[in-house]
Amino acid sequence: MSEHRLAYLGPPGTFTEAAAIRYSPDAHHIPMQSPFAIAKAVTSHIADEGIVAIENALEGAVPDTLDLLIHETGLSIREEVVLPIVQCLLVKPGTTVEQVDVIYSHPNALGQCRGFIERIFPKAHANAALSTAAAVEEALRDPRSAAIGNLRAAEIYGAEVLAQNIQDNVNNETRFVVLAQEDHPPTGDDKTSICFTFSEDKPGILVSVLQSFSSRGINLAKIESRPSKESLGRYFFLADLHGHRLDPPVKDALEQVAALSDRQRFKIFGSYPRFRG
Amino acid sequence: MSEHRLAYLGPPGTFTEAAAIRYSPDAHHIPMQSPFAIAKAVTSHIADEGIVAIENALEGAVPDTLDLLIHETGLSIREEVVLPIVQCLLVKPGTTVEQVDVIYSHPNALGQCRGFIERIFPKAHANAALSTAAAVEEALRDPRSAAIGNLRAAEIYGAEVLAQNIQDNVNNETRFVVLAQEDHPPTGDDKTSICFTFSEDKPGILVSVLQSFSSRGINLAKIESRPSKESLGRYFFLADLHGHRLDPPVKDALEQVAALSDRQRFKIFGSYPRFRG
Repeated sequence: MSEHRLAYLGPPGTFTEAAAIRYSPDAHHIPMQSPFAIAKAVTSHIADEGIVAIENALEGAVPDTLDLLIHETGLSIREEVVLPIVQCLLVKPGTTVEQVDVIYSHPNALGQCRGFIERIFPKAHANAALSTAAAVEEALRDPRSAAIGNLRAAEIYGAEVLAQNIQDNVNNETRFVVLAQEDHPPTGDDKTSICFTFSEDKPGILVSVLQSFSSRGINLAKIESRPSKESLGRYFFLADLHGHRLDPPVKDALEQVAALSDRQRFKIFGSYPRFRG
Repeated sequence: MSEHRLAYLGPPGTFTEAAAIRYSPDAHHIPMQSPFAIAKAVTSHIADEGIVAIENALEGAVPDTLDLLIHETGLSIREEVVLPIVQCLLVKPGTTVEQVDVIYSHPNALGQCRGFIERIFPKAHANAALSTAAAVEEALRDPRSAAIGNLRAAEIYGAEVLAQNIQDNVNNETRFVVLAQEDHPPTGDDKTSICFTFSEDKPGILVSVLQSFSSRGINLAKIESRPSKESLGRYFFLADLHGHRLDPPVKDALEQVAALSDRQRFKIFGSYPRFRG
């Protein structure tokens, strides 16, 4: 059997690489530059699957991933993976806390550590980087700086770990989804992700959609809105519900939702096993 | 009467400054470093009001602003302002398109111009900056680079405009809200913003909340979820509805929602006139 190829958001040392290793340690992990590139790698069979972050417990949804699913890909969600996010303060070996006056990281990581930075480095300048791994590379070039990233990045790039677990909230987890040509067969404990929108703005129509699920005892794990990109005030709704799209009550509910909403743009992203750690 | 002081997300040349000028051209505009600093300036009476971006038509909600409203301030929304966002490609005077191999901007602006960058600068390296104005300052230091920002930043920092209206979608608008000690008295055409959450995860409870509005003919302008920051899968819901919190049907609905949800964490952000351009 040929090797399994898994595309992820690079460079090596990002949390997405950590999720890729957690999901499929023996796969060939292919770093990509954007969620769009990951999706294209899978649709063009350069990779068998791709893994992308979809939601962080502190920062919320990852807009690029949601927009990719809504607007730009016919791929399905095949699995979900939840990973604890432990942020560390990394420096060029020998740099001390007193020397640090610039802190590099991805804006989300800077946001997750805002309280730590304000308390320990009240005068430091925060500098945005495109990923936590890119931040570590930048910090290694600049002896008066530190980066916020993970332990694996410290190992890969040879950085020294000055502090660990520096995020403001210990319950920091990220949910990743694995994209593939097809979703997952039923396992008995599944989730289904969908998106829907309305062609006209009728009061109460969202209530009718949600009742399609509640009247059948189907629990919604989450509901989210994204701009339609057509005009401010028009939205796509994304919902995660418990159950597989092939379970008869879920199937019925989804048919009803398709009929209530703008059918052309109703989309089932896929059904996949609920992550159990 | 003393001068009106309006805090905004600086530095000068950001879209938030443009919104501040649009909202109150004669105010004293005070640049601040973060939405949190803006809120503190208003609560401590350094500023009378503060203006912050809350939603972009392409990129969606501004998470920092939503989290500020949910978790960190007792301020109210007093006004909303909607501004068209026209992105431009700015360079150090004399730099040509052929010379550009690095593009600086805020990640949101890079996202709004992704198609333009891929078509015109397929080999350019995208570099994150903390604001569109900071990106212009960086690009002026580096002759092989360009920044994505607005015309006012070009004027303030002396940059040359190589291209205008480069965002991928012409319907690019941002909604800003003005934060103050108190919200706005009724005008007859108002909106009200609230947030609510549930202490336990009962199926159908979100439907009951939405029915509190639909049964009274109150239209929801939007609904959004944000992570509770307690654990993945628990959310705060934010809703904008038509009407003022002092209108009797809205008042009744809000009392019902407070009773259905976790009352301690139910919050009315304020009622304010609907923006009419």
